Amino acid sequence: MADFRTIEGGVLAARDFVAAATNCGIKPDALDLVMLHSLRPAAAAATLTQNRFRAAPTYVTESAVADGNAQTIIANSGNANCATGEQGLADAERMAVLAGEATGIQASEVIVCSTGPIGRFLPMDKLEAGIPTLGPALSRDNAELAAQGIMTTDSYPKSCAVEFDAGGAPCRIGGIAKGAGMICPNMATMLSFICTDAAIDVALLRDTLLECVEHSFNCISVDGDMSTNDTVAILANGAAEGEPMVYTEDAGYENFKAALQYLTQDLAKQIAFDGEGASKWVTIRVFGAKSFEQAREMGKTIANYNLIKTMLYGEEFNWGRIAAAMGSSLLDFDPNRATIELQGTVAWQSGAVADFDRATAKQALHSKEIDIRVNMGVGDGEATVWTCDFTPDYVELNKH
Amino acid sequence: MADFRTIEGGVLAARDFVAAATNCGIKPDALDLVMLHSLRPAAAAATLTQNRFRAAPTYVTESAVADGNAQTIIANSGNANCATGEQGLADAERMAVLAGEATGIQASEVIVCSTGPIGRFLPMDKLEAGIPTLGPALSRDNAELAAQGIMTTDSYPKSCAVEFDAGGAPCRIGGIAKGAGMICPNMATMLSFICTDAAIDVALLRDTLLECVEHSFNCISVDGDMSTNDTVAILANGAAEGEPMVYTEDAGYENFKAALQYLTQDLAKQIAFDGEGASKWVTIRVFGAKSFEQAREMGKTIANYNLIKTMLYGEEFNWGRIAAAMGSSLLDFDPNRATIELQGTVAWQSGAVADFDRATAKQALHSKEIDIRVNMGVGDGEATVWTCDFTPDYVELNKH
Repeated sequence: MADFRTIEGGVLAARDFVAAATNCGIKPDALDLVMLHSLRPAAAAATLTQNRFRAAPTYVTESAVADGNAQTIIANSGNANCATGEQGLADAERMAVLAGEATGIQASEVIVCSTGPIGRFLPMDKLEAGIPTLGPALSRDNAELAAQGIMTTDSYPKSCAVEFDAGGAPCRIGGIAKGAGMICPNMATMLSFICTDAAIDVALLRDTLLECVEHSFNCISVDGDMSTNDTVAILANGAAEGEPMVYTEDAGYENFKAALQYLTQDLAKQIAFDGEGASKWVTIRVFGAKSFEQAREMGKTIANYNLIKTMLYGEEFNWGRIAAAMGSSLLDFDPNRATIELQGTVAWQSGAVADFDRATAKQALHSKEIDIRVNMGVGDGEATVWTCDFTPDYVELNKH
Repeated sequence: MADFRTIEGGVLAARDFVAAATNCGIKPDALDLVMLHSLRPAAAAATLTQNRFRAAPTYVTESAVADGNAQTIIANSGNANCATGEQGLADAERMAVLAGEATGIQASEVIVCSTGPIGRFLPMDKLEAGIPTLGPALSRDNAELAAQGIMTTDSYPKSCAVEFDAGGAPCRIGGIAKGAGMICPNMATMLSFICTDAAIDVALLRDTLLECVEHSFNCISVDGDMSTNDTVAILANGAAEGEPMVYTEDAGYENFKAALQYLTQDLAKQIAFDGEGASKWVTIRVFGAKSFEQAREMGKTIANYNLIKTMLYGEEFNWGRIAAAMGSSLLDFDPNRATIELQGTVAWQSGAVADFDRATAKQALHSKEIDIRVNMGVGDGEATVWTCDFTPDYVELNKH
């Protein structure tokens, strides 16, 4: 039985990690530059956007983690460095060089991230001046500053930390994330940085991160708009001094995986529920699919159906829109064996409208937290998808 | 060279078609029941929604046109008769019987359509009383009434008529459509009924309708929400007395196809541009794809990217969102060979940001009609997709 507990400490909860953040002038008056650094070499893995218009820094990050090691993360907000061609790539590489010089490591050990408007060159003079100031500022005390520093239109900083035993030692994982859904005005990007002092083989770290991301960040949607810069990066520096985990059977791996899954889901939900203009936190549980992947696709189809999102904003029990969304997925299922449940009220089952009280059903929608459950009736695959509702504020916030 | 011209007359422009409309009480005070009828037997074809939660009437329609003949169309608004199980199917079949009795034809020759809220049973007492009144009311003068009768939240009735020569005779096609995009509150449905007096073999009619729909109604999107009731139906009664067209080489077929393509595109654009809350008419032209299908998928991805729709509402020249949308399609293309043009301004080409004046580019967006052109740079496939922008009114209009 996996065991872990949540703790304080944010992204710096794990030992031998430090952070710094500053305003270097990309934005007028908010933090726009963040550095996370491991005081010792760390195993590293990252999952990157699949968008074909990928931003320059994602190529640098891909290269940095290719050998399984990295020690520093440098991230700016206010400019995505995307659709910037050759110069953009050179600029991202230069950010790695500057960050490496500031922390005394090779540029090849630096993960680079950017978020902000697409199609504009980075103001490199500001980064040339700003990044060197971060080295001396690195501290164990800057967890909150780091969480704030990667915010764009987020309405609150997003962090989480957990503790568990692995390899005979108490280990910790801390993480931060940014993104008001995938829908920030001008800066459609989800970033998450995770630091752990667990000792773990990089191949196992990669597999575990990938699987956890599949069930967390890849299960959220605000508007279905995939970003060019999405990055989740993890550094594992072994500072907890436990026995390294190499195989899934190793002592504590079960705890590590459960803890990482909890942390990534917690951060992912914070993003989904902080969708711009959102007034509802929506959890969609899909059962009876042929596989997890099919269940998740159904969940995302429901999550992205605008007419459901506007209906939840209006607190209207128009469950037929969930039926329409399910059918529009074109996934292979049988409506006559499907069930649809909205906020505890079963509306459709056994090929017929269920007997329910419409007034009671509508009343239940006056809640901040909304629960949608559907059963596809064709297997035992399950998935949970998190999203938010759709309000006029979303449009107003995103018109520029 | 195909030749045709637009004419007056709406859906009854072709000879030997009549129509009637009434309020039978499904809606409080608007027309909610429409009948179209051919005075002579007609070849018939229909394309139906692919949504897996298909409405009951679509099964009746599918069955009606299976033998290639139909003579009457009965359509109600105010109730979709979808997710209504066995009773819904019986109700749709009963509508066909009633319409057949009213026009003196077999029920198997009746096309049935419904549009409105999902998951409620039809008020059959009102239809039992209402449908028989339509028979005596059928008239050549009711084209406008028919166009109005299928409206739901449409802000204007949508019709079109064309004339051309085929088989040695002047032929006509008239059509009506409804749907404020696919996004009507409670009644997400697009319907279009087309009447022609051309004489045409039903197999050729089917193929031609399918191809024209692929390039018209299947090229529009308001919010990507597929409906449960979408139906396009055509009746061809041969009343123009021309030589029947059987093969694509036959005299006048080229004119017929061009005229039908024009009419379906005209109606489709009327729907896309009447999207709820819309303030812009957006035309997206995709070039350089590997195929028409790939070009259309790219166009629809751009059309459904909410951040582009909100940006057009805000008249902001944030072309990077088009890049992000293209990349998110996951279609196989090379950003370095792609071009992006927004309202006449080339923003991206040859793997780099183009040299353009931002103020001029932004100024051009103060137009009702918006033009987006992208080139994928991998082939010579092309497609045009029509959509509208996304305003706070959309959310307010759809919250119930």
